[in-house]
Amino acid sequence: MANGEVTVALLGGGTVGAQVARIIVENADDLAARIGAPLRLTGVAVRDLQKDRPGIPADLLTSDAAGLAASGADVVVELLGGIEPARELVGLALDAGSSVVSANKALMAQFGGELHDKAEANGVDLFYEAAVAGAIPLLRPLGDSLAGDRISRVLGIVNGTTNFILTKMTEAGADYDTTLAQAQALGYAEADPTADVGGLDAAAKAAILASLAFHTRVSMADVHCEGITEVTSADVAAASDMGYVIKLLALADLSDDGTGVSVRVHPTMVAESHPLAAVREAFNAVFVEADAAGEVMFYGQGAGGEPTASAVLGDLVTAARHRVTGSLGAAASTYNEVAILPIDDAVTAYYVNLDVEDVPGVLAAIAQVFADNGVSIAGVRQDGKGEDARLVVRTHAAREGAMSATLAALRDMGTVREIVGAMRVIDTPGVVA
Amino acid sequence: MANGEVTVALLGGGTVGAQVARIIVENADDLAARIGAPLRLTGVAVRDLQKDRPGIPADLLTSDAAGLAASGADVVVELLGGIEPARELVGLALDAGSSVVSANKALMAQFGGELHDKAEANGVDLFYEAAVAGAIPLLRPLGDSLAGDRISRVLGIVNGTTNFILTKMTEAGADYDTTLAQAQALGYAEADPTADVGGLDAAAKAAILASLAFHTRVSMADVHCEGITEVTSADVAAASDMGYVIKLLALADLSDDGTGVSVRVHPTMVAESHPLAAVREAFNAVFVEADAAGEVMFYGQGAGGEPTASAVLGDLVTAARHRVTGSLGAAASTYNEVAILPIDDAVTAYYVNLDVEDVPGVLAAIAQVFADNGVSIAGVRQDGKGEDARLVVRTHAAREGAMSATLAALRDMGTVREIVGAMRVIDTPGVVA
Repeated sequence: MANGEVTVALLGGGTVGAQVARIIVENADDLAARIGAPLRLTGVAVRDLQKDRPGIPADLLTSDAAGLAASGADVVVELLGGIEPARELVGLALDAGSSVVSANKALMAQFGGELHDKAEANGVDLFYEAAVAGAIPLLRPLGDSLAGDRISRVLGIVNGTTNFILTKMTEAGADYDTTLAQAQALGYAEADPTADVGGLDAAAKAAILASLAFHTRVSMADVHCEGITEVTSADVAAASDMGYVIKLLALADLSDDGTGVSVRVHPTMVAESHPLAAVREAFNAVFVEADAAGEVMFYGQGAGGEPTASAVLGDLVTAARHRVTGSLGAAASTYNEVAILPIDDAVTAYYVNLDVEDVPGVLAAIAQVFADNGVSIAGVRQDGKGEDARLVVRTHAAREGAMSATLAALRDMGTVREIVGAMRVIDTPGVVA
Repeated sequence: MANGEVTVALLGGGTVGAQVARIIVENADDLAARIGAPLRLTGVAVRDLQKDRPGIPADLLTSDAAGLAASGADVVVELLGGIEPARELVGLALDAGSSVVSANKALMAQFGGELHDKAEANGVDLFYEAAVAGAIPLLRPLGDSLAGDRISRVLGIVNGTTNFILTKMTEAGADYDTTLAQAQALGYAEADPTADVGGLDAAAKAAILASLAFHTRVSMADVHCEGITEVTSADVAAASDMGYVIKLLALADLSDDGTGVSVRVHPTMVAESHPLAAVREAFNAVFVEADAAGEVMFYGQGAGGEPTASAVLGDLVTAARHRVTGSLGAAASTYNEVAILPIDDAVTAYYVNLDVEDVPGVLAAIAQVFADNGVSIAGVRQDGKGEDARLVVRTHAAREGAMSATLAALRDMGTVREIVGAMRVIDTPGVVA
């Protein structure tokens, strides 16, 4: 910080970059009051210098991203997305002693550990609130307000596209393909929706959330990932019959002994009275269970230029304030040695819907299969007769490994015609004063 | 800060104080890592030195609260509650150069402005996350993560007792008196429930939330307050018929021209698909509408020793970290000149349920009364005939003053037998990507 001002370099001049640049200029007085010194934009790195960029002063545009990144600005804001050249440029900025604000989910999910090390070595800040759940103030509370508490579980609806699709399937009763096409027409899903519906976007965010919640290093490769492409309207109807809605959840939980963490993304039946069930359309929410704080949920818009710009601005204000007060790097996490558990060691309750032969003893035989694999049954409902006989089983929490073995054994039974549905279940939190 | 440690003085040794003392001692290493220096408890001021206080080292107990408050500890934590002597002791601590963490809602609602001035004059921190909505990280995100954004409205369910009662009335269909008695038996309501059911507790929290959201000074006397004692099971049933649930909301909103803010507490019909409708039992939530961030909600436990201790610890960690890094007072709010609007200038939609004579022209006459007062009707439903004729009117947003005049005029009409119900309404937020 020199001349009593905080210098800011922007890498990327797209939608979010233009918003951020505009707010820095338009709200200059307000931001200066909050930070304790004025912000000065020193440059905006873009690929195409010819393109018209309303809101960004033309003389600040540069195509020399590496030069700007290494220029030693107080804060470098990275809004490029993707791994390269973002990874290299953020590295240059940190090594030049700049604090970095990034909205880059992919980068932080894959190289968060490496970049945190670099930030720590250089004694600067590295913030990325916008990388998960858009404008929801989430990462700072996780690291800050809940400091001194122990988080046991994080459950998130972190992908707007899949939540939009599942909400429409639930409320309109439509099937997956129809709803996906509708979401694409409305702009809620991409032409190639794989990253969203396959759960990969949620998995990247799960890795970041788990890293912060458990002060450990989780990268995307550690996340067990199942998308929503197999969710049928029959699953949605069955969930509704039982008082549940289906949500794609990013989950991270600590094992009972506190030595391991399981991180996964999969469709989940969530009890209708659980606060996450009320998160509709493209909204996001993250539900945190902590020892002392109890249950806490953060809800808001997950995507969009304005919310993302708002989150970037929040980080920029904090990083700039730290330059003014000299309290850089104070938020760097301490790291715990927590093992990443394989999916078989995750513990969860299940719903299983079986199409069975209506013959004497079928329930006893099926119950025996669950018992043989050490899975405890919480409840059974038998519907229909003859050709239409259905058996719906709700289990208590069990190891995933035990549950997979149970499902494999059920599939081999002559009396089981088909496993119509099998899904993990989250119940309503208990009543706490 | 001396000798490389951060000294902490506790005022109050009750449930929360004992929890905080215990965590400071038991989690010493973890806290030291987060803060960058160890915490050392220098004293705990209590009224009765003889009382057994497990978790608090006996040699730290003192009955000289004023001496401890003025001892110049790095951080003074005030957990006494009530106005005096808390106000005097917090003043002594701030003047001695200590940062202060308080869980005292009444004190901050009434004397927040005075104490903020003192903190600013002394260049120290004043945090009170625990004063509103228990452990929900809320005040810091409001002041911090949403910095650089403009908040337009805050809607909160901030009183667990009334939310518990309204949830039971909704889900069990019981009347108010029966449900209050049940809440008292379960410990969710006090023997004298006035502060809760009369809305005063919520009004104090509304004042604090409004102060933070709009960077202005709102004290309890500025808050228009209506409790839940007049809510009937008929209101609850009528709300349910229309797809709404009744919640006691603390509201603060900015006028369209940005020059005034209206702060109020009253029962409100909230659309079932609004995220606040899913906040059940004794849980709390605060829903924030901001220009850039859009809609954001914070949810969690509002009361209880552990959540309160967790919130106090979070503040303590931040305040202690600031002592270590020397960035004291950085979070002090800048103040805006925003007028507090009288209740007549609040703008809200209404539901009105009228018991009317079933005679020709009654609807036209009633519609004319709304029109004469400048209240626009959004929808009308006519139920029953003859003796049982009912007219349910939903208005568009209108000034409270216009609405009061409308209700007074309706009461004077010969064809209106009774105003069965009249309540403000909050609809579901629009779908945003």
